[in-house]
Amino acid sequence: MKTTRIHITIILLALTCKLSAQNNLQKVTAFRQANQQQIIDEYLKLVSIPDESNDSANIKLNAAFIMGMLEKRGVHAELLTPLQGNPVVFGEVKVPGAKKTVNFYAHYDGQPVNPKQWAPGLKPFTPVFITAPVEQGGTIVNYTPGMAIDPSWRLTGRGSADDKAGVMSIINAYDALVKSNIKPTCNIKFFFEGEEEKGSQSLAEIFRKYKDKLSSDVWIICDGPRHVSGKKMVLFGVRGDVNMQLTVYGPKRPLHSGNYGNWAPNPGLMMAQLLAGMKDDKGDVNIKGFYDDVIPLSKTEKIAISKMPPVESILKKDLGIAEPEAGDRSLIEGFMLPTLNINGMSSGNVGAQASNVIPTKAEAVLDLRLVLGNDMDRQIKKVTDYIKAQGYYVIDREPTDAERARYGKIIRVLHDAGYNAQRTPMDLPIAQSVIAAVQSTVNYPIVLAPSSGGSLPLFIFEKELGAKVITLPMVNYDNNQHAENENVKISFLWEAIETIAAIMQMK
Amino acid sequence: MKTTRIHITIILLALTCKLSAQNNLQKVTAFRQANQQQIIDEYLKLVSIPDESNDSANIKLNAAFIMGMLEKRGVHAELLTPLQGNPVVFGEVKVPGAKKTVNFYAHYDGQPVNPKQWAPGLKPFTPVFITAPVEQGGTIVNYTPGMAIDPSWRLTGRGSADDKAGVMSIINAYDALVKSNIKPTCNIKFFFEGEEEKGSQSLAEIFRKYKDKLSSDVWIICDGPRHVSGKKMVLFGVRGDVNMQLTVYGPKRPLHSGNYGNWAPNPGLMMAQLLAGMKDDKGDVNIKGFYDDVIPLSKTEKIAISKMPPVESILKKDLGIAEPEAGDRSLIEGFMLPTLNINGMSSGNVGAQASNVIPTKAEAVLDLRLVLGNDMDRQIKKVTDYIKAQGYYVIDREPTDAERARYGKIIRVLHDAGYNAQRTPMDLPIAQSVIAAVQSTVNYPIVLAPSSGGSLPLFIFEKELGAKVITLPMVNYDNNQHAENENVKISFLWEAIETIAAIMQMK
Repeated sequence: MKTTRIHITIILLALTCKLSAQNNLQKVTAFRQANQQQIIDEYLKLVSIPDESNDSANIKLNAAFIMGMLEKRGVHAELLTPLQGNPVVFGEVKVPGAKKTVNFYAHYDGQPVNPKQWAPGLKPFTPVFITAPVEQGGTIVNYTPGMAIDPSWRLTGRGSADDKAGVMSIINAYDALVKSNIKPTCNIKFFFEGEEEKGSQSLAEIFRKYKDKLSSDVWIICDGPRHVSGKKMVLFGVRGDVNMQLTVYGPKRPLHSGNYGNWAPNPGLMMAQLLAGMKDDKGDVNIKGFYDDVIPLSKTEKIAISKMPPVESILKKDLGIAEPEAGDRSLIEGFMLPTLNINGMSSGNVGAQASNVIPTKAEAVLDLRLVLGNDMDRQIKKVTDYIKAQGYYVIDREPTDAERARYGKIIRVLHDAGYNAQRTPMDLPIAQSVIAAVQSTVNYPIVLAPSSGGSLPLFIFEKELGAKVITLPMVNYDNNQHAENENVKISFLWEAIETIAAIMQMK
Repeated sequence: MKTTRIHITIILLALTCKLSAQNNLQKVTAFRQANQQQIIDEYLKLVSIPDESNDSANIKLNAAFIMGMLEKRGVHAELLTPLQGNPVVFGEVKVPGAKKTVNFYAHYDGQPVNPKQWAPGLKPFTPVFITAPVEQGGTIVNYTPGMAIDPSWRLTGRGSADDKAGVMSIINAYDALVKSNIKPTCNIKFFFEGEEEKGSQSLAEIFRKYKDKLSSDVWIICDGPRHVSGKKMVLFGVRGDVNMQLTVYGPKRPLHSGNYGNWAPNPGLMMAQLLAGMKDDKGDVNIKGFYDDVIPLSKTEKIAISKMPPVESILKKDLGIAEPEAGDRSLIEGFMLPTLNINGMSSGNVGAQASNVIPTKAEAVLDLRLVLGNDMDRQIKKVTDYIKAQGYYVIDREPTDAERARYGKIIRVLHDAGYNAQRTPMDLPIAQSVIAAVQSTVNYPIVLAPSSGGSLPLFIFEKELGAKVITLPMVNYDNNQHAENENVKISFLWEAIETIAAIMQMK
């Protein structure tokens, strides 16, 4: 009997909580509906500020704008400034009686951008709405402020998705709670980074300098695309990432391809031959020991992966891919392995500027994604050793005349700062709380993934702060992140505000 | 006795001729010395007119300027205009009593140009003097009109060497004879083409239309670089040339290299693997039947080649090449074979604009040089068949969605107009006359080569006009022809005027 009564009490309590959560969710939705014009207006202004990580003048304007956004909502904001590099915009809200502290992370800088590659009418820093992806025939909306906003529209611009969407969602989720008189259950910290897209080079320094100020029970990383199925998702890890820049040297000056053809070596061909050998026909990397350090998945992680909805047939159709690189290996299985991707390669000119020359050099940029167990320097060394084994003399600067006279195959190998992978165990109580909060906002089972394919410098959070880190992807998967025509679908922004507001109220 | 007397007469005659030739050479040199300011002034103006073959507005300005140059020297000039395409500037001088007619050819259009690739201070269409190649530390001369011109200077600009140097030398050689009261031994025709750099697409049409007007005993093609040894040279053939444009398709939109890495195929890698297989480690083309059609050299041609000064050690040092592509095969031996050169390749971005993406496509431009026996269409088919054999579905336009869904490897293969090779036998009397004229201007044995490495549409001269064609290269070999920082060394221009004047007086 007693047991039955307790059971009933628990059920009633749970029901009350659920009803209360649903009630609060409705309030947040109502706030967003009533204020969407102002939110969009502010979003357009934010995306209009150029955000390339190396453009420090504009980066400062972004930081100042975001400080203004926080202060307008009564949050005290400050800049955490490294010795060299871009500042973090930090804000803090203390909630009386709160037993948890949550740090919400997003980054306001964006990837480098080549405006010429954008579709006609789209410019990286002149955001406009489009009706659908331009690749699918979307057209530009003749938008004027005050017009009703269709949630199927997409807002275009560098950073619109990656990751000013994070900044916008976090700040407006907090705003929605305050304006709806809903008390958060946790102390809230706002942490907006300004150099994620160039490898978060100052993050460790900032963490060391402001360790106490930044303490929290969990970091919620608001970045990246939701699951291809369109379902909400929580991610427990990220891949690490490091870039390598390769330059193969040909003749000292460009040569007429007739007057030197069949005699002068062509650096484009040399680069093609070097890159070609790095992967086999099955999409596997041919480099010795490339997969050796990978730590196997836990049982819980394997189960989570097995429950993830399949996405491959949608992706094939959407992306125009007949044969994925690795045959039957699923997208998520591939995420659990390190990658070697050719981000770009170039030698001479193509198209209208092509001319009949043997170029002086060939360049390539490799992107190495890393998984748990991989060490960045060790992975770079494996690739460099492979290059050496192909007969290359490896340097980290331009070759001298003496080196050119001595070595037939010369390559410059550079790499950027990069960082290792990170994974948080899914069974931790704080992880379960976050899962429950996100689950409370939708009626279908949310997607749980041990690791994303993408990268964030979460490794440093653990190392410097001993922090727990959970990632909340928010934007549409077809957002052209890191590329031309980047965009965020408005409905995803609205849902992100609701999701983050739910986490701010988690049990 | 009689024989002796005849012998003495011949010797005296030959001596008189030689003295007369030397005397005339001195007069031409004196003319050039007295008029070098005006020549250079006109040269600077000519190179200042942009000359990319597709820039038809500026091409017309070039043609008008060159007509003016001829008319200023009393030569009636006219435009030979094709239905579509750029006009030929034609002029004619009839010499009373002349037994030969010689057509002097040069082209006034230039290769496409990317101004960003030029060295600081150098601009394609703002010619300046430099003290030496910029790659060897040459600096810009602070030149003002009237200043003494150092013959070791180089005049920079697109077209300065290739081939406005030809236009300048021919017109000024004629001017030197007229102003020095030297009567040419032949009727002279001036033929300046305006679309050589895009494959001389209208040349056959012009030849058919003006066949009678263009008749001559020989065409002297004034184009290309002199021998690497610096010696004067006569060339009896050219390679043919055709370009292929390849585009390999990846995903329909650029993808985040983390979120799709290890799953979406990378078109850069596919292109690298395709190109890599086209040549082996010895620099030989791996494509089936690539060398099959080559017609072997005659005995005379083999002897001429054996007498050519070796250039490889100079080139290695100058160009910073430790190992030529084909080991011990000499430069000239390589000229006698068809080539496959990668003019350019591109996928995604490198350098500051590199970002972590899987690009949508990879492009490459191939340059196929052809030798006697090769047929352009047959050579293209061999390469296309090779591509098909690598599993590619070959199209000549963008792929449809249905094709993307069906074929894992899709490539677009295009090619430009191009043309075949040409060789004139060295033993013809007219060939011997030209050789003797050029030889009369210097004290060392001139270089005779069966074929250059470069290309000109000389095939069409034989086919349409039944003409004999001999090529007279004139500019410094390190002229950066077809590339950034193109330049002509002034001393080579002065010598070209003397050489052409000698041919205008040939026996």
